[in-house]
Amino acid sequence: MNEKAINDILEEVVRNVIDQLGGKTPNASACEKTSDVIPVELSGRHVHLSEDDAKALFGGPLTLTRELSQPGQFLCKERVRLIGPKGVMDNVAVLGPSRSHSQVEISKTDARILGINAPVRQSGDVAGTPGIILASEMNIVGLEEGVIVAARHIHMSPEDAKKMCVSDNEKVSVRLESERPVILEDVVVRVNDAFNLSMHIDPDEGNSAGWDKSVSGKILSKGWRS
Amino acid sequence: MNEKAINDILEEVVRNVIDQLGGKTPNASACEKTSDVIPVELSGRHVHLSEDDAKALFGGPLTLTRELSQPGQFLCKERVRLIGPKGVMDNVAVLGPSRSHSQVEISKTDARILGINAPVRQSGDVAGTPGIILASEMNIVGLEEGVIVAARHIHMSPEDAKKMCVSDNEKVSVRLESERPVILEDVVVRVNDAFNLSMHIDPDEGNSAGWDKSVSGKILSKGWRS
Repeated sequence: MNEKAINDILEEVVRNVIDQLGGKTPNASACEKTSDVIPVELSGRHVHLSEDDAKALFGGPLTLTRELSQPGQFLCKERVRLIGPKGVMDNVAVLGPSRSHSQVEISKTDARILGINAPVRQSGDVAGTPGIILASEMNIVGLEEGVIVAARHIHMSPEDAKKMCVSDNEKVSVRLESERPVILEDVVVRVNDAFNLSMHIDPDEGNSAGWDKSVSGKILSKGWRS
Repeated sequence: MNEKAINDILEEVVRNVIDQLGGKTPNASACEKTSDVIPVELSGRHVHLSEDDAKALFGGPLTLTRELSQPGQFLCKERVRLIGPKGVMDNVAVLGPSRSHSQVEISKTDARILGINAPVRQSGDVAGTPGIILASEMNIVGLEEGVIVAARHIHMSPEDAKKMCVSDNEKVSVRLESERPVILEDVVVRVNDAFNLSMHIDPDEGNSAGWDKSVSGKILSKGWRS
């Protein structure tokens, strides 16, 4: 038996094994994802306000009442009422600091109650989204656009991204270890020096997964699905 | 080179390939799951009533207004009010025919609004679950137990089960092809001659997956996760 014959057999074996395993070939990437545990936070309905809208609704700048997990972000003392064509929601959280554009983040459940067909978007991507009416005790402001269902995402630092072998804006699949285990696909990775490691899901996603504060997520490696 | 040496090399190659592929070995089962498309229905909050409770609330037997996807099951003309310690829900659907025990199926979102800590359970498995108050226009009935969040499940006939290579009470993972794709794990298969093929999820699960009537599910083959 010559060397070529042996090599032919070896190649045939490799092909057969790979075929039997469903055609999955190993990822050639040098970067190996670790299975770091990611804290999962539930992001309830909330509003970001522009400086002008904050002034119109509350007469002045927003006031901090509690700091949030992402550095610089805070819950405000101020609260708003959301008014849609089919329903109203009171006592909705306002998050600071103020932004260039006002934005309202609700769940699909909220969207049905308010009667607003809000699309799933990344924060800040509000072009062409539906509007809503915001009310405080002293004023009413109409937004022409800005109502979204926030796309699930993971905040992380460049160091975390490197460790987990992902990059900014990459979409990953994350398994939530919970009472009702799920894998959420199309989770957007957002990398920034100012970010602490945290995955944000909305209340629908939380409820459907039986989320509680102890639930964490794991990024699945590329090519995880057969 | 003798035969044993060649076999040793072949075995080593197979081991290496399998290692590189993440240790996944092929499923030895003779039964191969097909990737049949399963219609996915959203199961909103509803109530099943015992004959006694139906009589107490409505003075007589339940009346059919529309047949449902599962043979023999129907939506009733009668509606009830759910009364929990923190909230009330009006105009809740009653499904017939009446059962041996009354049962209330709500979502986790509903559970929070009502203030009832309902566990995820299969239909019929109500031992030790929380109670609730049901009201009609003519009476009030207190249930000592029976409030559940229905575990996601798939109804199918024995023929479907054979084709999809699953059995009654087996838990499978199902991918929903949707705006926000998810894989729901621990989906219970329920096999019965009287069942039509249909997966039932609750509104939280539907909203978190961006469900609409066009969304279907696919059972993932065993050992699908690396």
